[in-house]
Parts: sequence; structure tokens; C-alpha cells
Amino acid sequence: MATNLKTIISGVKGFSVAGIHGGLKKNGAPDIALILADRDCVGAGVFTTNKAQAAPVVVSQDTLKKNASQLRAVMINTTSANAMTGLTGIENAKTVMRWVAEHAQIQPEQVLVMSTGVIGTQLPMPKLEQGIPALVEALGQDWVSTAKAIMTTDTRPKLFSLRVYTMDGDYTIAGISKGAGMIAPNMATMLGVIVTDAKLTQSQAEQALKATNATTFNRIVIDGDMSTNDTVFLLASGASGVLLKTPVDLEQFQNALEIVMKALAQAIVRDGEGVTKFITLHITGAPDTQTAHTIAHTIATSPLVKTAFFGGDANWGRMIAAAGRAGVAFNPETARLWITAGEELFEGDKGLLLFEGGLPTRYSEADASEIFNKESIHVSLDLGLGKTEATVWTCDLSNEYVAINADYRS
Amino acid sequence: MATNLKTIISGVKGFSVAGIHGGLKKNGAPDIALILADRDCVGAGVFTTNKAQAAPVVVSQDTLKKNASQLRAVMINTTSANAMTGLTGIENAKTVMRWVAEHAQIQPEQVLVMSTGVIGTQLPMPKLEQGIPALVEALGQDWVSTAKAIMTTDTRPKLFSLRVYTMDGDYTIAGISKGAGMIAPNMATMLGVIVTDAKLTQSQAEQALKATNATTFNRIVIDGDMSTNDTVFLLASGASGVLLKTPVDLEQFQNALEIVMKALAQAIVRDGEGVTKFITLHITGAPDTQTAHTIAHTIATSPLVKTAFFGGDANWGRMIAAAGRAGVAFNPETARLWITAGEELFEGDKGLLLFEGGLPTRYSEADASEIFNKESIHVSLDLGLGKTEATVWTCDLSNEYVAINADYRS
Repeated sequence: MATNLKTIISGVKGFSVAGIHGGLKKNGAPDIALILADRDCVGAGVFTTNKAQAAPVVVSQDTLKKNASQLRAVMINTTSANAMTGLTGIENAKTVMRWVAEHAQIQPEQVLVMSTGVIGTQLPMPKLEQGIPALVEALGQDWVSTAKAIMTTDTRPKLFSLRVYTMDGDYTIAGISKGAGMIAPNMATMLGVIVTDAKLTQSQAEQALKATNATTFNRIVIDGDMSTNDTVFLLASGASGVLLKTPVDLEQFQNALEIVMKALAQAIVRDGEGVTKFITLHITGAPDTQTAHTIAHTIATSPLVKTAFFGGDANWGRMIAAAGRAGVAFNPETARLWITAGEELFEGDKGLLLFEGGLPTRYSEADASEIFNKESIHVSLDLGLGKTEATVWTCDLSNEYVAINADYRS
Repeated sequence: MATNLKTIISGVKGFSVAGIHGGLKKNGAPDIALILADRDCVGAGVFTTNKAQAAPVVVSQDTLKKNASQLRAVMINTTSANAMTGLTGIENAKTVMRWVAEHAQIQPEQVLVMSTGVIGTQLPMPKLEQGIPALVEALGQDWVSTAKAIMTTDTRPKLFSLRVYTMDGDYTIAGISKGAGMIAPNMATMLGVIVTDAKLTQSQAEQALKATNATTFNRIVIDGDMSTNDTVFLLASGASGVLLKTPVDLEQFQNALEIVMKALAQAIVRDGEGVTKFITLHITGAPDTQTAHTIAHTIATSPLVKTAFFGGDANWGRMIAAAGRAGVAFNPETARLWITAGEELFEGDKGLLLFEGGLPTRYSEADASEIFNKESIHVSLDLGLGKTEATVWTCDLSNEYVAINADYRS
């Protein structure tokens, strides 16, 4: 499989997009977005596991159940999450579907909806009624504006595309995402829309999205919170004409999808609220996957660990202490911990060994400090208890995070 | 039971104490403390459940196993936690016990030890060897200096005493504690020493400490982290001559102990790192205790909830979202959420109802904002799923917390 990676999006066939200001954000920034397909698409979705599900989550789950092979549009609004809004919230989501359908000349049940913003406020319906016709009017290939129009406290748009060249022709996978706060395994306040012009069956789309989500969006941790609205959609237009005929074709597609979704997920961490450092946390030597993930998640959500990263303080003891309280198998005597700069290991070199046999090594504090002061840090923790591993991507906790979240609604 | 509460300590018989500067802290503040009994004491301890246990935890558990009826002293040092220090750490802890015994003219196996500070550094043995004789020399009734000498990032000493008047005479319960960061259920980086001149059997001491710890120190949450060193000791000298003869006597003692330990635990929350708000979180209507505690803990550790409290932002949606992701039974349709100012409900009045039937109520934003801007806020969340309840005490997350923890070691 030859691939061609782009940090902008172009050439994905069968879709037009728009992101405009619809009067929702006070500062005049783009605040509503639409992705429209020119033909019926096969689709799949993964959703928040939060028991308090927002109205667009409930409604779109239903749409996918009934109509996953005839999808045409994804409509996204910011400022109101349409969560904890009762039956009125459900009705409003359905009205938005009708408005989009009416102006785009499709059917309401072909429209998926997403919302992000404050919990407990109804959708700004008069503004959406005015904005949606203008949004349809603006449809084109401006993916950057579209990605901007789904941002909340994000500081930059997140978009990525990749073209796959096969013997049967080439296809493109493209996606946009938003995140910032409340990001943890199981996706948190994450929205993502991935589109492709490859031709997938409905079960292929579902399988590919679920498998890939588990190793990308579900591996990122910002603050450990999880929202009521998290959703990732995959829509396949088939406009490239390239079918995924064999299991190998599907595997190729999944590998390419993983690159796109990993890029979009990592972009969310890098742009986490107040983030100054990107941390790759690699757990090895675990007896099982559950243990590896629990320890990774406990370290990644520890405020003490995260503030130490922010301060560039090589306080590895906090990582060992977090592992110790994770409630799963852990033995400091068999554990080893390394740090190195960057996101990936160079030729498998885990870097500076800080802790082994229940004791700190005789490492140089200056060396450790130099690594901890890099913008990108790779931590390897070998539990010494088995052969399973897991990776999560996380970030530091800065006073900027606190400032952003202390007055988000105002 | 008549009681007499004091926020200073006096009149607890059979103990002398000291807290002095032993050269450990750079700023010259008190940094080592000793509590010495003039006769053999009965004792009990509760310890961190972190799998990475510090040397003083390991050693003192052993001391209590072998010698719980002949205890004489508790020695505490700051700056080094003596955790992740291997066999040398264990040997150093035992050497400290010997030094204390030698100068106080008791036996090494009668000395309990506690350490708090940075993980992974050995105890400053030359300084302790010099400091311990001076500490023994300084023994007296200065509980304030003693409480100061166990502080790390605490901003004020925590001490409390209470006298209980019974038909058989009166006895006193007194205690000191330290906390600040890393506080969560199961005690986290908490040290507490409680002494009493009541006469207890060893099983009475153990039962009373365990039961009371569960409803006091284990109910406080600052940042959700848990340390390698958490320990609470109870020592009973019996010097008042008052025996706990009947189950009613023991119950009275436990009630009094709860008042002391609750005061010391709440003082830790109030003095949490960067804390500006004290929050009482009362969960009712839970199907079982596990559910109530899990939801309370998930809300109390949510960075989004904590930053909203810091900002005085009545963003109750974040509390519902946290409950929804707690992984236990939760249904927004049956849940109700109230807020009011203060720490206790006045005549059972839960205050302003914000959320009911899956929807925000038509509350006034000004009223909600007024409550959220108080220093002390009581939150009631009725799950509507049963009859079990739980209370935790927690605090907000401020940029000051981040600043403190970003450069703790430097």
C-alpha cells in the first residue's frame, strides 16, 4: 500500500463541506458546520459511554440503526451541547435534521447531528433556522473553515487526509476533529467526522471504525473527564469506485484509517486546554490488557504527575505512586521506568533508566531534567509481570487549563 | 456524653511532644517531630493501600504487629518520604528508631516512624542523627510546633483536641495531621497522629481507629492521588485512668474520636494545595454504598467540576456528566441536584434545585451564581435509585495548585 499524507484535505470525492458563523458564538467565529454527500453513503458511529447522553447522541444512534446505508449529511453546532435538555432537546435535534434536509433537498432521516458546548441549554433554534440555509449555500471544499466551525476551546482546526493507491485505483480518507478538554479513553468531549470515497459495506464500515477507534481516540487522555456528546462518524461515499473486496483490502483500509484517526486524536492532545507538553506513555510487561490500560490511565489522569510534567520536574516517584494506587497488579520491585525525548523510540532505545529494583538508579539529575523539559516526552514503564503492552497519549496540566475551565460558561 | 472542644491541645496526659528545625528544610522551618509517652501505650494504625509502600509504612506495620501494647513514641520527618528507597530505606528507618530509643531511653521496637516528602530520596541521616537528640531535649507540651514540624506544602498546622466527661472521670483525645496534595479516599499523602489518655485494650484501639477512619480521613478528596506514605496512628496511654468498660463506653469514645478525626480531615481539605472553596458532596438515593461512593469520588476528582467551583461557575452539567461516566448505576431522568451555601444543611433544606427529570429547572442564574461564589458549598445529588447515601468533602482546583505542584521538588 502506497500512501500519501496531507495535513490539508483535498480530493475526497462525493462530499462538499461548509463552516460559517451562524450567530452562535459571541466573537463572530465560525460556529456551525455541514458535511454533505452527493449520493447515499454507508456509515457507522461510535458514541460516548456516559450514561447521561446528549440528545444528538440519542437521535443519531437511532438514525444509524435505521438508515446506515443511505446517509447524506452530518450537521454540527457549537455553543450548546443539547445535553440534559429533555424531550425538547430531542425535538430540537429532529427539527435541525428537517431544516438541513429541506435546504439540501434530502430526507431528514439521512442527516446525522452533533452538538458541542454547554450542558443544559437548549439549542439556539432561531439562529439555527437562519444559519442552516446560509450553510447549505456556502457548501464547497473549504475543509479548514469546516474544521474551524466545530472548535470550542480548541486553539486550532484539526484536519487530516491521506490517499491510498491500490491496484484497483486510489481512494482518500479525510477527517476533522475537535477536542480540547474532557478527553479520556472512551473519547470524552470529542467530535470526529471521517469521510472516505472508498466503497465499503455497512459491516466493513462498522468494523473498521470500532477497531480503529480503540487504538486511536480511545487512547488519548487530557483530564480524565468524559462528555455527554462524544461521537465519531465514518461516512463512505464509494465515489472513488474502489471496493474493499478481500480481507486484505479491508486490512489496508483499516491501517490507513488508523493513520488518519491517530493524527486527529494526537492533534487533540497537542491542543488540549493549556497543554505545553505531549507525553507518550508506553506500558509493557503487563499480565493483561486491563492492567496495562488501568495503570496507563491512572498515571495519565494523576494531577500530581501532570503538574510535574508542566513544571519540567523529573518527579518519577509520582508515576510509580500512581501505578501503585491503580488497584491492579503492580510491584515496584519488578518495575522499571525510562524516559526519553520525542514521541517514538529511536531503534527501540527507551532512553534514561530512572527506576529499577524498587530504587532510583544513579541517573544524572541534569540528564533527567533536560528530557523533562522537552515538549515531547516518551515514558516507558515495564511492569515486569507479563507480556502485554498499551500506549496512551497524554499531556501536562497547566495553570492555563484551570483558567480556561474556571470560566468556560462566561 | 458532655464534650469540650478545643482547637488547641492541652491536658492530654502521659505525652510530651516537640517539633524543631533539624536542618532538613532549606527555609529553617520546623521539620522533625516527636511524640513520646511516659508509659507503654496501646496503639493501632491504618496505612496506605498503595502497592508502592514507603519504608516507614513497612517498618511500622511490623512494629504494630509485634508490639502494639508497648508503644512509646512516634517519630516524624519531612522532606524525604523514604519511599522507593529499597533495603537502605528500611535500614535507615530502623536506625532512626534506634536513635530515638537511645536518646529517649526506651526500646527501638517501641518507636513508630512516619516520613513525608519527595519519593526516591534516602533519609538525610547525618541531619537526623544530629537532630534527634535536640528533639528529645525539646520535649514538652508545644503541640503547635509539633504540628508545624510535620507540614510539607500545608500552609498552617492542623491540631485539635476534645475532652470527654464521663461518670468515671474525664479523658482527652488530641490529634495532629498534615495533608495538602494527593488526598483522596484511602487517605493519600496524609499523616495523622491521635493520642488519648483513655485506657483502651488493643482490640478497642484497632476497632475504633478503623471504623472512624472510614467516615473521616477516607472521605476527603483533594486531587484523587494517593501516596506511598499515608498513615494514621492512634496511641492510648491510659493515664486518665478512665477505662472503656462497656460497649456504650466504646461507642462514646468512637463518637468523640470521630469529632477529632473529622476536624483534622476537614482541616486538610480546607488547606489543600491552592484551595479556595470547601465543598460538601452529599449523594442520596443510591442503590448501594459502592455506587454512592463511586459517584461521589468521580465528581470530586473531576478537573472540570473542580475548576468550575474555582471559577464560581454554576456549571452543574459537569457534575451530572461526571456522575454519568462513573461506570455505576446512574439515570439523569431520576436524578435531582441541589446547591446551598455552607457545610451542613439547615433543617434539612437542600437549597436551590438546579436539575430534575433530566432537565435544568427554571432556577435563577443569579441565585445559583451567588451560592457558587461562597467559600463553602453544599451539593446534594439524589440519584433516585435507592436509599443509600454517602458524603465526601472536597475542594476546588485552582491555578495555585498547579503552581505548587509544578515545582515541588525545586
